[in-house]
Amino acid sequence: MRGLELKNRTTTEDIKKLRLITAVKTPYLPDGRFDLEAYDSLINMQIDNGAEGVIVGGTTGEGQLMSWDEHIMLIGHTVNCFGTEIKVIGNTGSNSTREAVLATEQGFAVGMHAALHINPYYGKTSLQGLVHHFESVLTMGPTIIYNVPSRTGQDIPPPVIKTLSQNLNMAGVKECVGNDRIKGYSEEGIVTWSGNDDQCHDARWTFGASGVISVASNLVPGLVRDLMFQGKNPSLNSKLMPLIEWLFREPNPIGLNTALAQLGVARPVFRLPYVPLPLERRVEFVNIVQKLGRENLVGDKDVRVLDDDDFTLVSRY
Amino acid sequence: MRGLELKNRTTTEDIKKLRLITAVKTPYLPDGRFDLEAYDSLINMQIDNGAEGVIVGGTTGEGQLMSWDEHIMLIGHTVNCFGTEIKVIGNTGSNSTREAVLATEQGFAVGMHAALHINPYYGKTSLQGLVHHFESVLTMGPTIIYNVPSRTGQDIPPPVIKTLSQNLNMAGVKECVGNDRIKGYSEEGIVTWSGNDDQCHDARWTFGASGVISVASNLVPGLVRDLMFQGKNPSLNSKLMPLIEWLFREPNPIGLNTALAQLGVARPVFRLPYVPLPLERRVEFVNIVQKLGRENLVGDKDVRVLDDDDFTLVSRY
Amino acid sequence: MRGLELKNRTTTEDIKKLRLITAVKTPYLPDGRFDLEAYDSLINMQIDNGAEGVIVGGTTGEGQLMSWDEHIMLIGHTVNCFGTEIKVIGNTGSNSTREAVLATEQGFAVGMHAALHINPYYGKTSLQGLVHHFESVLTMGPTIIYNVPSRTGQDIPPPVIKTLSQNLNMAGVKECVGNDRIKGYSEEGIVTWSGNDDQCHDARWTFGASGVISVASNLVPGLVRDLMFQGKNPSLNSKLMPLIEWLFREPNPIGLNTALAQLGVARPVFRLPYVPLPLERRVEFVNIVQKLGRENLVGDKDVRVLDDDDFTLVSRY
Amino acid sequence: MRGLELKNRTTTEDIKKLRLITAVKTPYLPDGRFDLEAYDSLINMQIDNGAEGVIVGGTTGEGQLMSWDEHIMLIGHTVNCFGTEIKVIGNTGSNSTREAVLATEQGFAVGMHAALHINPYYGKTSLQGLVHHFESVLTMGPTIIYNVPSRTGQDIPPPVIKTLSQNLNMAGVKECVGNDRIKGYSEEGIVTWSGNDDQCHDARWTFGASGVISVASNLVPGLVRDLMFQGKNPSLNSKLMPLIEWLFREPNPIGLNTALAQLGVARPVFRLPYVPLPLERRVEFVNIVQKLGRENLVGDKDVRVLDDDDFTLVSRY
Repeated sequence: MRGLELKNRTTTEDIKKLRLITAVKTPYLPDGRFDLEAYDSLINMQIDNGAEGVIVGGTTGEGQLMSWDEHIMLIGHTVNCFGTEIKVIGNTGSNSTREAVLATEQGFAVGMHAALHINPYYGKTSLQGLVHHFESVLTMGPTIIYNVPSRTGQDIPPPVIKTLSQNLNMAGVKECVGNDRIKGYSEEGIVTWSGNDDQCHDARWTFGASGVISVASNLVPGLVRDLMFQGKNPSLNSKLMPLIEWLFREPNPIGLNTALAQLGVARPVFRLPYVPLPLERRVEFVNIVQKLGRENLVGDKDVRVLDDDDFTLVSRY
Repeated sequence: MRGLELKNRTTTEDIKKLRLITAVKTPYLPDGRFDLEAYDSLINMQIDNGAEGVIVGGTTGEGQLMSWDEHIMLIGHTVNCFGTEIKVIGNTGSNSTREAVLATEQGFAVGMHAALHINPYYGKTSLQGLVHHFESVLTMGPTIIYNVPSRTGQDIPPPVIKTLSQNLNMAGVKECVGNDRIKGYSEEGIVTWSGNDDQCHDARWTFGASGVISVASNLVPGLVRDLMFQGKNPSLNSKLMPLIEWLFREPNPIGLNTALAQLGVARPVFRLPYVPLPLERRVEFVNIVQKLGRENLVGDKDVRVLDDDDFTLVSRY
Repeated sequence: MRGLELKNRTTTEDIKKLRLITAVKTPYLPDGRFDLEAYDSLINMQIDNGAEGVIVGGTTGEGQLMSWDEHIMLIGHTVNCFGTEIKVIGNTGSNSTREAVLATEQGFAVGMHAALHINPYYGKTSLQGLVHHFESVLTMGPTIIYNVPSRTGQDIPPPVIKTLSQNLNMAGVKECVGNDRIKGYSEEGIVTWSGNDDQCHDARWTFGASGVISVASNLVPGLVRDLMFQGKNPSLNSKLMPLIEWLFREPNPIGLNTALAQLGVARPVFRLPYVPLPLERRVEFVNIVQKLGRENLVGDKDVRVLDDDDFTLVSRY
Repeated sequence: MRGLELKNRTTTEDIKKLRLITAVKTPYLPDGRFDLEAYDSLINMQIDNGAEGVIVGGTTGEGQLMSWDEHIMLIGHTVNCFGTEIKVIGNTGSNSTREAVLATEQGFAVGMHAALHINPYYGKTSLQGLVHHFESVLTMGPTIIYNVPSRTGQDIPPPVIKTLSQNLNMAGVKECVGNDRIKGYSEEGIVTWSGNDDQCHDARWTFGASGVISVASNLVPGLVRDLMFQGKNPSLNSKLMPLIEWLFREPNPIGLNTALAQLGVARPVFRLPYVPLPLERRVEFVNIVQKLGRENLVGDKDVRVLDDDDFTLVSRY
């Protein structure tokens, strides 16, 4: 597709400056379809608390459980309703180059401001294949590359990133390998976002990251905003650590989904293969909330411990 | 899906007032994908010449040749780029209730202002089935019902329309059966748009139609605007008649596609089963343009007679 | 796709000889998914009673309400379970040339013996466009062309059929226009099947049709078999007429679906936009069955009048 | 879907006995569509050389680059053409439970003999989520679970396998973690296949594996057959090791695709993100073939070193 819609686009430079991007949760109705009312409310909470961008359908948002038409619709919906208030970054990556190409075309056509691209997980490929894959989509608009070997089974090594950085659409890297890697990129002038909430404070203030693409900010957007904008604050960072550790005891977004349900801001509906954390973890969460202060978390209902029976698990969604 | 996106919606009353809606052509690249650059240009011509709404992916726009993800993407794209300047009416109808339901949900989610719904063509159903079909989608937002028995094989009779009119989302009917039918609806207070360019002047000024959903306005938007806004004008109506007759000698959009290619505003690419008009008709078109005045038609290139070899026919698009 | 699977194919000549082909109903589970157990049972009834072929996902089988993956799966399933006992003719036609091409490739790949192709309904096209459309799929294997202007809004005229008949894969025409048209084709040596149960006896014995593609044979396969194989039998033909008239009082397959539910061979589940016949018609059916003799119809349960509450209508299937 | 098609199914016990299953390559036409002619030829080579089963659309067959309709079609095609001669095991696994459920229903409906199921790669889940995921599909028919943490980022630990083994449809595990793990399962009476060609000889003869699900057998089916059937043969195993090492220097199926192209049994067409091995590796392969003896590898053309220009890389397939 060729389009004039470029006029609506954010520049790559605009994307590079973002400090707080939330990998936003996708909430569901009891039959497993999107609960757009809850979604819109979550996005508004992000805007109100200072998030500058959202990843739509990331691993946190369970893009891997969406059909592409659902996924593109959600991107288009977010742009249409909130695109003037927050940057909309569509996770249009895929381990299939074909799917990545089609989804990225469609995502930019419906107005997303940038694309997030993962390397081909599971199927994997050679380093040369990685470059071909990313170059197939980099022509289309501002792009963040996402490196998370613990999910993909394959690291994107710095030489590949450096090659890709010659493309003007390359905004930077969401890097989960750690702060040494981030430091290296900073020294090369390559923009990074920490993909690990527990490392993001140091990444930002010590290792040169532009900011964070955060899961925890779904819950405490204002505090993560402070962490990214208000200068070094090891005390706040420490205060958040119990929540962050709790969030990642099982693969994300299991913890986040459980938490948002208990905060009353999303229905307790899980698309399989995700299932809620067990009761003892759910009790722990309530304690963590009480220590952090309920007012620091999203929503205005009392936090509560849900019973097993409160949750709906859906396999045909 | 449940969503707060209602805040972005146009009301049904807003839709009822539209006088000139263009069933806009979808232009293609040589491989059959959408040519969004040409599309955006076509939409801008509509806006500049006073069209108030567009049907995206109607029969004219070849929605029947699109995959649903292409179709929803095109709706989302149009909303994103032009939604503040023109009403975007998505043809999210289908002869499958399932597809109509899903597409209409997605269309409203990406911001379309109204839906166009056809009765189940080809498969057909009983009158009771028609009501069930339309009621499955009428809850979602402003809706225009489309009646064109020459395509669907089945008339939507007035009693069905009257039943549907009790729904507050029902904006009116795109009616192709003729001006007597339109007159009857006008007397009942049911809004209509003529679906026949050759009858729209009389429909508007004599039989009570709100306006037209036009094919010809793809070519002569300013003149059709005058026809709908400037009072009775039989002289202008007569002046347009040779073009209109030429347009519909073969099933629409064959004539329109041929014309726009010869005007240089869309590439001469056809998705099968459409093929261009034969040479003698193409010569006729140039003569018609010269009589109407090139300046009254869209585009600024010279009109020319294309050769058979200039056209690309695509079966895998 | 290129394949060696030709070795499994039936020849066009084999298809031409078929006298009784049933346009088989697709039965559903209460959530709208296929009820393959009931389907397999229906197919076995056809085999046991002498049907020589089935149309899978025809208009009777509600192909227009299937996704293509459902449709191809059903073709593959039928081939896999019954392909040595009955000819499997997949309705891989579409009003989109792209969809027709892809579905026909896939249908032949999973082993269907022939394709049924409709002209582009609703969207329509020129005669030249018709030829292009059909030629895009005729290369792939034995093909029956389906002409039913009351559904498509456009007749396929004899010159188009004659042009297509030069292709060796062209088996013949399922013709619904009437017996005069069939007579004309017979005189030209073009194979036909009547698409109208009420005309099929005369079509076969007086006008030269090869046989019938039947709806009624879903209910009375043995009697329709007799009608096609046992010579002129106006008495049997008359005896069937009340059933046939009853079947087509509303667009097919509304009557058939209602009948099979009342015979207890399919669940009373309708995919919208189809809804059951009203109570008075359902009572009529029981009377018709009693006159014909229950033993002449499929199934072995008592026929009964279902209540409105017995039926499930599904819009998200 | 409910179906009687169980009559066609292979039992779980039949699957457990298979010793040589080939994870068969999917060959492509220059535009990226399936080359079914080459595919059928590859399957015939497997049958002729003693493979007892094939995995259709595994990671080797690039199922991750297929649309589901392509994938199910390929399974149906394989069953239809070869299902009486070789067991057809469809890789209908997915990291989305919804997709796994739908694909597995469809795969069994078109006649596959068993399903291969991976754990949710990339998205990952908790151990409890793993069990829910697999139990959503285990009801449908004979199933092999596939454990390959180097691709999925998550090991399926023995306790999960033991829980699943209580299901009668559970045939066994394709295990890539190593022969110690295989030994443990053997001691528990759980059937395994080695997923590592370099370990499969020892797995089979020393650690109790039932056999191998092999990549190398695409190239040397007869020799891998000997390795699995003829008793301990460390000499043959050593002879194969240079080929096996060569095959896995880059992520599979990059080596295999390159090899089959140079053997002239598949076109040199790659779906991105896969790209051919570089020239020096391609030269090495020819040397390896010469040492093994050309007659031991599939195909009857001379092996040759292809040039870079001989390869076609496709991103829109």
